[in-house]
Amino acid sequence: MEDVQSRSDDRNLPIQRVGVTNLRYPIAVLDRQHKKQETVASFTLSVSLPHQFKGTHMSRFIEVLNDHRGDVTMFTVPEILADLQQRLDAESARLEVAFPYFLDRSAPVTGAISMMDYECAFIGDVHGSASDFVLRVTVPVTSLCPCSREISDYGAHNQRGYVTVELRTRPTPAGEAQMVWIEEVIDVVERSASSPVFPLLKRPDERAVTMRAYDNPVFVEDLVRNVALELREDDRVQWFSIRALNQESIHNHDAFAELEWSRNDER
Amino acid sequence: MEDVQSRSDDRNLPIQRVGVTNLRYPIAVLDRQHKKQETVASFTLSVSLPHQFKGTHMSRFIEVLNDHRGDVTMFTVPEILADLQQRLDAESARLEVAFPYFLDRSAPVTGAISMMDYECAFIGDVHGSASDFVLRVTVPVTSLCPCSREISDYGAHNQRGYVTVELRTRPTPAGEAQMVWIEEVIDVVERSASSPVFPLLKRPDERAVTMRAYDNPVFVEDLVRNVALELREDDRVQWFSIRALNQESIHNHDAFAELEWSRNDER
Amino acid sequence: MEDVQSRSDDRNLPIQRVGVTNLRYPIAVLDRQHKKQETVASFTLSVSLPHQFKGTHMSRFIEVLNDHRGDVTMFTVPEILADLQQRLDAESARLEVAFPYFLDRSAPVTGAISMMDYECAFIGDVHGSASDFVLRVTVPVTSLCPCSREISDYGAHNQRGYVTVELRTRPTPAGEAQMVWIEEVIDVVERSASSPVFPLLKRPDERAVTMRAYDNPVFVEDLVRNVALELREDDRVQWFSIRALNQESIHNHDAFAELEWSRNDER
Amino acid sequence: MEDVQSRSDDRNLPIQRVGVTNLRYPIAVLDRQHKKQETVASFTLSVSLPHQFKGTHMSRFIEVLNDHRGDVTMFTVPEILADLQQRLDAESARLEVAFPYFLDRSAPVTGAISMMDYECAFIGDVHGSASDFVLRVTVPVTSLCPCSREISDYGAHNQRGYVTVELRTRPTPAGEAQMVWIEEVIDVVERSASSPVFPLLKRPDERAVTMRAYDNPVFVEDLVRNVALELREDDRVQWFSIRALNQESIHNHDAFAELEWSRNDER
Repeated sequence: MEDVQSRSDDRNLPIQRVGVTNLRYPIAVLDRQHKKQETVASFTLSVSLPHQFKGTHMSRFIEVLNDHRGDVTMFTVPEILADLQQRLDAESARLEVAFPYFLDRSAPVTGAISMMDYECAFIGDVHGSASDFVLRVTVPVTSLCPCSREISDYGAHNQRGYVTVELRTRPTPAGEAQMVWIEEVIDVVERSASSPVFPLLKRPDERAVTMRAYDNPVFVEDLVRNVALELREDDRVQWFSIRALNQESIHNHDAFAELEWSRNDER
Repeated sequence: MEDVQSRSDDRNLPIQRVGVTNLRYPIAVLDRQHKKQETVASFTLSVSLPHQFKGTHMSRFIEVLNDHRGDVTMFTVPEILADLQQRLDAESARLEVAFPYFLDRSAPVTGAISMMDYECAFIGDVHGSASDFVLRVTVPVTSLCPCSREISDYGAHNQRGYVTVELRTRPTPAGEAQMVWIEEVIDVVERSASSPVFPLLKRPDERAVTMRAYDNPVFVEDLVRNVALELREDDRVQWFSIRALNQESIHNHDAFAELEWSRNDER
Repeated sequence: MEDVQSRSDDRNLPIQRVGVTNLRYPIAVLDRQHKKQETVASFTLSVSLPHQFKGTHMSRFIEVLNDHRGDVTMFTVPEILADLQQRLDAESARLEVAFPYFLDRSAPVTGAISMMDYECAFIGDVHGSASDFVLRVTVPVTSLCPCSREISDYGAHNQRGYVTVELRTRPTPAGEAQMVWIEEVIDVVERSASSPVFPLLKRPDERAVTMRAYDNPVFVEDLVRNVALELREDDRVQWFSIRALNQESIHNHDAFAELEWSRNDER
Repeated sequence: MEDVQSRSDDRNLPIQRVGVTNLRYPIAVLDRQHKKQETVASFTLSVSLPHQFKGTHMSRFIEVLNDHRGDVTMFTVPEILADLQQRLDAESARLEVAFPYFLDRSAPVTGAISMMDYECAFIGDVHGSASDFVLRVTVPVTSLCPCSREISDYGAHNQRGYVTVELRTRPTPAGEAQMVWIEEVIDVVERSASSPVFPLLKRPDERAVTMRAYDNPVFVEDLVRNVALELREDDRVQWFSIRALNQESIHNHDAFAELEWSRNDER
């Protein structure tokens, strides 16, 4: 059977990315408390295609994924990318894997434990021998409006917000990759909000969370700045982008803020 | 060319509904203030298929829709359904058309005017000579938690909620269809919540809305009951179903309540 | 602290369902080949609320779910529902749990194995001592249009379709619950389509799948009827509803068909 | 009432974008055939916030939008952005407005006319006195796989695909903005695919479309290259990015390709 994809192409147009997306697959990721966590991921896998080839071989993406079945971490992503480069004969390869990550959270007063879900992703890129890795974590929080609190005799509008952090770490002086745990990012974001959200709150917990939010009002602008302040102090972090989105409880639209920072720009 | 769809079928299985869905189309609907409002709809159109026919003729759904281009109201839906019955030679026909509906809303103190969007739908059914019409309106609101307010020294968690009302009217004694305006349903729901939401609020408005919500705490259960209380008193209403969903600001999941009522069950 | 929810209510309006929704939680389900499969679910849990109570206790839904952590099957759903009834002091309780389910599939010629995802759900209801259980399975397939094939000199439009089956089983003569495996429903649907879809196809597989689809053209109407024919013959099945949706490759809208059947109506 | 947002901030962190999103609003856009077209848009509006201010004034976004009610085109977007800069006292402002756009399409043989929807967007940016404008158009098409056709004795898998084009024009020698019509982009994409898709096809049309697709097989790679070839030849075009996504009819995942090009890189 002819390999139609390998035919030559004379349009002189290289393609930056070609591959598969919206592919669901079960994975295991690193879990600081339990070592490994089983979850379900959505994959996007792609490679670059030089101008002289007509097409890529889509089935090989699935074969590479199968070879690494069950193991997707900051440490295995570079291996998957190297395999994609080799099997698809490509200069560049890219992987994005998004998944819900679960953590036990204790209610603030009763200590009642339940599982919270956080949407996370790993985005890995390789171009020749240069590589890149971005961690993305989205954390739901409570935000209470400082303006509403200040101008009202009582009460203050508040709502669920979602803070999405993307970050790159810098290598150690010895040139080794440094890791920031998903758990660490979640903690930074939850400290930066009016209050964390919880799956399970008994009445004393609900009282504590209500008053904590009222005591810590934040605008969407404060959310991104509070997170940025802490991440900037973390020597492991090279670059970050923070997006906060509030499901405004007094509007039918959302408020948002985006802050990007690089250690390079600081000097 | 052979009409494959008209071939006979011997599996002895009638199909309740066959048709097209996720079809976007611009429409004009009745607007109490401006008479007509241009908007964009998503259509689902279907008919019943007797056991002896292999298939229906999908292109005729689009032809019928084209014939009524630009005019979809409580009064034209029966004509569209009759056309579907006739053109597709079907005993039953069904139409669901969902669309955003816009209204000018005045901020409570400054009176600043802006446009709010409400997601609405008409669902029409005809079976032989019997017909049915359901109006659906979804209204975003603010809900403030009575428990959180009661047990806390200050503050109270609140959030955006969505209340969806479906209703049928009963005919007049003379047998004529009765209409309930989308605007009327919106007003009932907004009165039933802690506060309406608004697109545009200046500081004095935000203060008023914040305190109004604190003064009118409602559970998701109260939301559906408050709406039900008013609709039950409206002689035009024969049946309703109410669903309230709160984007809980202290959780990463939602709370909901559903209440269905029929005038027939009351007697 | 006062229990606001337990206050009495004088609006005389019972609420059919009140609870939590859009709650993500990791679960383990039965797997015919590997006994258990870890996946991630989205839960809706609710109870009925009598007219005389102001509210339900939302945190108890999470507590009940925690008590059954990691075990959601046709056999444990009744226990979860009984716990909801008891802990929330409710006459009726309902649970809907939706999750992706993964199976190894072999490519038709090379036998290359890869994992396919199927969206599934369990819907359990209990009212007093009466209970109900519905299994829902959505299977992606290829459908090739019989009309397009018949009227064209070559080629035929085809597309991805999604067939969703909901079914109830009937008890054994001894009164015991009967099980239909997710895997069995998937097999019935895949046999009913022009071809199954696969995650991984090498060239000889792609050739086989292409020609198989051309040899087995089906309308959306045929999809639901073919599935119905087989399920009707299965003595374990009491009731089913089948919905097929085709992402028509020649239109920007979808075609669909719905067929509902009950063994009761047959007699 | 105090203006909390105008308080000073000492965290020394400027915010690149703060504003509102997911705001629905009816608009009128330019239509080559009918001059104006009424549709419904989703808006994102934002400004930059210098490090020394605590917050922006969200209500002013809505006021600016209200001032331009009903008029959003390539020519008015710069005015809206200038108003945002001024009213919010910001160096940078950004607007993204996404909307369905409708065109009458004639079936290829019978000429039967019906309305097709295309998802479009304008993205405008201003920074000081420098401005940018990007047009985005998504066009649904049919793609038929060249490999499947080549290796099979008969038939070929095909599917609905979506091609998204983003482009910037370059100014005329006199420094004036140049326009590319949405209609022109749609035509380029439809010529680049195996076949356009249509809302309404009678049997002779379906036959023509089926055979046309078989005669013009394209990979997802061909889709982006064919569009790129034509846009590169258009002197008005300065930059483009093309993304094609195929809802593969033989898989439960999608294939995609992305190609970006700039006239600057050509020289």
